[in-house]
Amino acid sequence: METKIVTIDLDTRSYDIYIGAGLLFRMNDFMPQDVEGKSLFIVTDTNVRTYAERLHTMFSEGNARSCAMHVVPAGEASKSFERVEEVCGWMLENDLNRDSIVVAVGGGVIGDLTGFCASVVMRGVPYVQVPTTLLSQVDSSVGGKTGINTRQGKNLVGSFYQPTAVIADIDSLQTLPRRELLAGYAEVLKYGLIQDAGFFSWLEKNGERVLDLDKEAVAHAIEVSCKAKADVVEADEKEQGRRALLNFGHTFGHALEAEAGYDGTLLHGEAISIGMIMAMDLSVRMDLCDENDFIRLEEHLVSVGLPTRASLIDGLETNVDRLLAIMARDKKVKDGKMVFVVANAIGDAMISNAVPEDLVRSVLVHSLGGESKGGNKGIKDRWLSAFSSQ
Amino acid sequence: METKIVTIDLDTRSYDIYIGAGLLFRMNDFMPQDVEGKSLFIVTDTNVRTYAERLHTMFSEGNARSCAMHVVPAGEASKSFERVEEVCGWMLENDLNRDSIVVAVGGGVIGDLTGFCASVVMRGVPYVQVPTTLLSQVDSSVGGKTGINTRQGKNLVGSFYQPTAVIADIDSLQTLPRRELLAGYAEVLKYGLIQDAGFFSWLEKNGERVLDLDKEAVAHAIEVSCKAKADVVEADEKEQGRRALLNFGHTFGHALEAEAGYDGTLLHGEAISIGMIMAMDLSVRMDLCDENDFIRLEEHLVSVGLPTRASLIDGLETNVDRLLAIMARDKKVKDGKMVFVVANAIGDAMISNAVPEDLVRSVLVHSLGGESKGGNKGIKDRWLSAFSSQ
Repeated sequence: METKIVTIDLDTRSYDIYIGAGLLFRMNDFMPQDVEGKSLFIVTDTNVRTYAERLHTMFSEGNARSCAMHVVPAGEASKSFERVEEVCGWMLENDLNRDSIVVAVGGGVIGDLTGFCASVVMRGVPYVQVPTTLLSQVDSSVGGKTGINTRQGKNLVGSFYQPTAVIADIDSLQTLPRRELLAGYAEVLKYGLIQDAGFFSWLEKNGERVLDLDKEAVAHAIEVSCKAKADVVEADEKEQGRRALLNFGHTFGHALEAEAGYDGTLLHGEAISIGMIMAMDLSVRMDLCDENDFIRLEEHLVSVGLPTRASLIDGLETNVDRLLAIMARDKKVKDGKMVFVVANAIGDAMISNAVPEDLVRSVLVHSLGGESKGGNKGIKDRWLSAFSSQ
Repeated sequence: METKIVTIDLDTRSYDIYIGAGLLFRMNDFMPQDVEGKSLFIVTDTNVRTYAERLHTMFSEGNARSCAMHVVPAGEASKSFERVEEVCGWMLENDLNRDSIVVAVGGGVIGDLTGFCASVVMRGVPYVQVPTTLLSQVDSSVGGKTGINTRQGKNLVGSFYQPTAVIADIDSLQTLPRRELLAGYAEVLKYGLIQDAGFFSWLEKNGERVLDLDKEAVAHAIEVSCKAKADVVEADEKEQGRRALLNFGHTFGHALEAEAGYDGTLLHGEAISIGMIMAMDLSVRMDLCDENDFIRLEEHLVSVGLPTRASLIDGLETNVDRLLAIMARDKKVKDGKMVFVVANAIGDAMISNAVPEDLVRSVLVHSLGGESKGGNKGIKDRWLSAFSSQ
């Protein structure tokens, strides 16, 4: 199949995303600079170590001066100050200089951690992203957000730093558990929801092909998602306005993630799936959005096996007040007011600063297992079967 | 006296430096945004805590929503990952948001540490610098370099991040030890050396007035220095080319600092004083520069009490090979070649990539106590008396 190229146009920080099959073995074609005589630094995690090792071998046998590889434990816990110190120290010990190129091979955790390290070591060296999950291919490959977590919350320390190239090799998805694929799919769907009703309809018809890794379908879904995110990011690189639309479902979702504890009980994409339903529910309660759009979203999420209710999260212990408190601390709070992304319809999201707290409470009560709104029968079974099919 | 304003013109990241007496008590006039309803975060160190507390009181009694203050130990050791984690954590615990303003009150260490924290916490919040040493007023207040040290060396982790305002209150220099003043003076002199022969001559005549804190003289020296650095930085914000001129004396100086161990034995400005002499010596040996310019520089440094030879550093244990190895690891190395800033004359520096290693060795041998070159009699006595006059 043909390699698709999405150009992210950010003036001197512009770069290309390459989307296709078998790209890893053609990495030299996609590197933004000639690697001859350069020292390369691959950062990866225990999940995709084998995949990264192929790249390591290829670069080591090529004309680079050197290629070093560092493996961190898979999982959110690696997004820590401790790992940043470790990774930067490793780079400096191995004679990193300003002409070196850092290569991140892995999912969002590796991209966020490595991107942050690349942005601060020697005050910034070039880095190339090789996202290996659907989520990271459609989300963290565009936008230049890097970051780590602190005791106070997720991504509260980080930088805006653009990669010099992104290589989204869809072959890397072959070994990805179905549950991880689904989590990425939630973000794909988000682009349809916020600004592209046609893409949402396409996904209603072709979602299963994407999840079955039909090459053409998955490449198309990644391309449309990256372009959609690029449109928003190019208009608003530093997240002052329009870029906030990308947070559709995220204020709710982040609160759920915080309560679930980042231990794998609830994946980011799963939290976003529930969060998007909550944001649509809020939009309906605010009389912005027709209830049929809410039902359409819920039906599609349920049909692919994504969760739609906080009450479905295994062992989650929380309540409305705790979730509200976490949301109030979220960095999307501006001048003390809570900012929500809501939708007028599928494909038409907007930012609202004037959300009555009682409606937010109703949404939380509903999601946590309050009054039923129909259409949820059998969801837990389907979701759990998606889990067990890994 | 009138407040001088130097504007640093960096497009959307432009800001003003205010230079004058009694500025601390007029801080509200100089804040880039109205502080009403905002949460302010002052970071300072044990050296200038009393000075910072006045600001803390003033802001706490004003119309800001809140003002918190955090004191770190004075000294280079605070430029560590550990402190970054501590300071960012403190900010987040105290409900920092994107509208908060961080205020750094202190010398270069506080500016570098606080600027780095401000650049990464929530991926960047505005920060205002209140430099309290001559060195930080003329050096770190322009250029946006922030950074911390690692086991591998100084400033190897950091960011380019511009403050939103700099308030250089010369009253804060009143309590500064003479030795610290002198260290700052070395950087002032550097601007004359690299691009302004007239300013160098002015300093030959007025250096003592500056060091005696004559208000007009010191404000003039700071203004000229900031403007000189601004010229260079505006042309080359990310240090790709011309900005490297600011490293005159620094490749040598950093190596000496590394060997001295950052424990206060050798201040940065003292290392730069010796480093500038070494860079001039190298320039003479390369037949670029007339020996009379070397002598003129040495005489002025000696007359004010700045050190000019590595052999004068108390207890320094090093040798030529060790210093060469450190310089080779310095981040100013490009493609394996050592980059030196040399001078054609006082006021005319340039970058050279073609420096024969044997000349660098000769310079190091000479500075470490090899063959004398005249003019050094009595230097150690003068330097030591500057030390003991603190």
